[in-house]
Amino acid sequence: MIDDLPHRLRFVLVRTSHPGNIGSAARAMRTMGFTRMELVLPHRFPDREASALAAGADAVLDGAGVHPGLVDALAGSSLALGLSARRRGVNLPELTPREAAIQALAAAERGGQVALVFGNERTGLENEELARCHAMVRIPSVDDFSSLNLSQAVQVMAYELRMASLGERATAPPSLHDEPPADAAQMERFYEHLAQMLDDIDFHKGRAPTTIMLRLRKLFQRAQMDERELRMLHGIFADAQRMARLAAGKK
Amino acid sequence: MIDDLPHRLRFVLVRTSHPGNIGSAARAMRTMGFTRMELVLPHRFPDREASALAAGADAVLDGAGVHPGLVDALAGSSLALGLSARRRGVNLPELTPREAAIQALAAAERGGQVALVFGNERTGLENEELARCHAMVRIPSVDDFSSLNLSQAVQVMAYELRMASLGERATAPPSLHDEPPADAAQMERFYEHLAQMLDDIDFHKGRAPTTIMLRLRKLFQRAQMDERELRMLHGIFADAQRMARLAAGKK
Repeated sequence: MIDDLPHRLRFVLVRTSHPGNIGSAARAMRTMGFTRMELVLPHRFPDREASALAAGADAVLDGAGVHPGLVDALAGSSLALGLSARRRGVNLPELTPREAAIQALAAAERGGQVALVFGNERTGLENEELARCHAMVRIPSVDDFSSLNLSQAVQVMAYELRMASLGERATAPPSLHDEPPADAAQMERFYEHLAQMLDDIDFHKGRAPTTIMLRLRKLFQRAQMDERELRMLHGIFADAQRMARLAAGKK
Repeated sequence: MIDDLPHRLRFVLVRTSHPGNIGSAARAMRTMGFTRMELVLPHRFPDREASALAAGADAVLDGAGVHPGLVDALAGSSLALGLSARRRGVNLPELTPREAAIQALAAAERGGQVALVFGNERTGLENEELARCHAMVRIPSVDDFSSLNLSQAVQVMAYELRMASLGERATAPPSLHDEPPADAAQMERFYEHLAQMLDDIDFHKGRAPTTIMLRLRKLFQRAQMDERELRMLHGIFADAQRMARLAAGKK
């Protein structure tokens, strides 16, 4: 992670109508470690509703700059990425949020400052605002319901920036438990004990045990058990065998 | 993209306090193409505020099921993923939203139904609710400000599911079995039978069964058993119980 990434990234909200959205956006940024907000002609700010919805991210609001135009809010930035759901008339390269995050981090690593730019809730970014951006970011919403709430768009973008900064964890399917798996020899002893226990409790009742044992192997191999789990199951089998011995002894 | 993916994925909101969050969550789901919402004991629903914040995603709210408990809301699902910011005391594998989306799509491709489970705004998911889940999903927020708004968490998860469904199909984990996966209700009956059998064979010997049952749940949730495997294990438990009865009767 780049040490000063939070200082190199700014979230610019343009002509935001609802102060609550400014607060929610501050909270969304803050959860992902970002603190720098710039506001262009907000309809109402500061505002009690913004503070309420910031839910503790007050420092983001307190530090937010308020600007008369987008050019001001972009001062010092070398890369501006504009969020938009527009389909036409935008003469800009189009990125997914994931691609945008990678570009943003690369620019920050080169020593630049990066702006993520979000338009008005209803009208989005105007053409001349998009013209100040180097690329357009489209969140891949469905065509028949494409409009995310402003703070949701901020959250998605901040989340992707955080994921990118944490360094794209490998895509290997994650391990589904946290202890070292039992080794092959331990598993064989487990299957022997299981088979013996099934005999003792008369599970097979004359049927050949082969198919059942194959199915049980498949099930327990899939579970990739660890040593503690094996000990637990050995314990259960031992108690079932104890019951079988008691039952037989009392016949 | 799997054709009926929206029908195979459900968003389950548990004990939601603010109806506005239910509305915002519906909108967040809808922007990413998801429509199936299940509510467990919502404090107020239906509610005007929920409808207002759904911003046109009324069909999601109209179709939402309302349930008295989580087990009900999970009916028919074979994979449940619980969103949580917890750091300790959760005996579950932990996934990022991206990893969770891959697992969810893989399960849906195998014919299963998948639930994403979100807890109360302030208290999150309780231990026993998480115990009904196969894995925990942690959104990678920063340690000193870790709490996303509920609908923001829904948005991030829905976004990752949408991204996963749009491509990145590359390496879905291959199916590890060939029968229909057991659903949540069948798994609950299985755990009840397992717990009763352990009592009958006197496995606990005075110790509290809670920890053991959580470990066994973890093991068997991980195995994602099919119906035939469940029948086989029910049969084994029944024979162990029969031995216990014989042992007791002959005392």
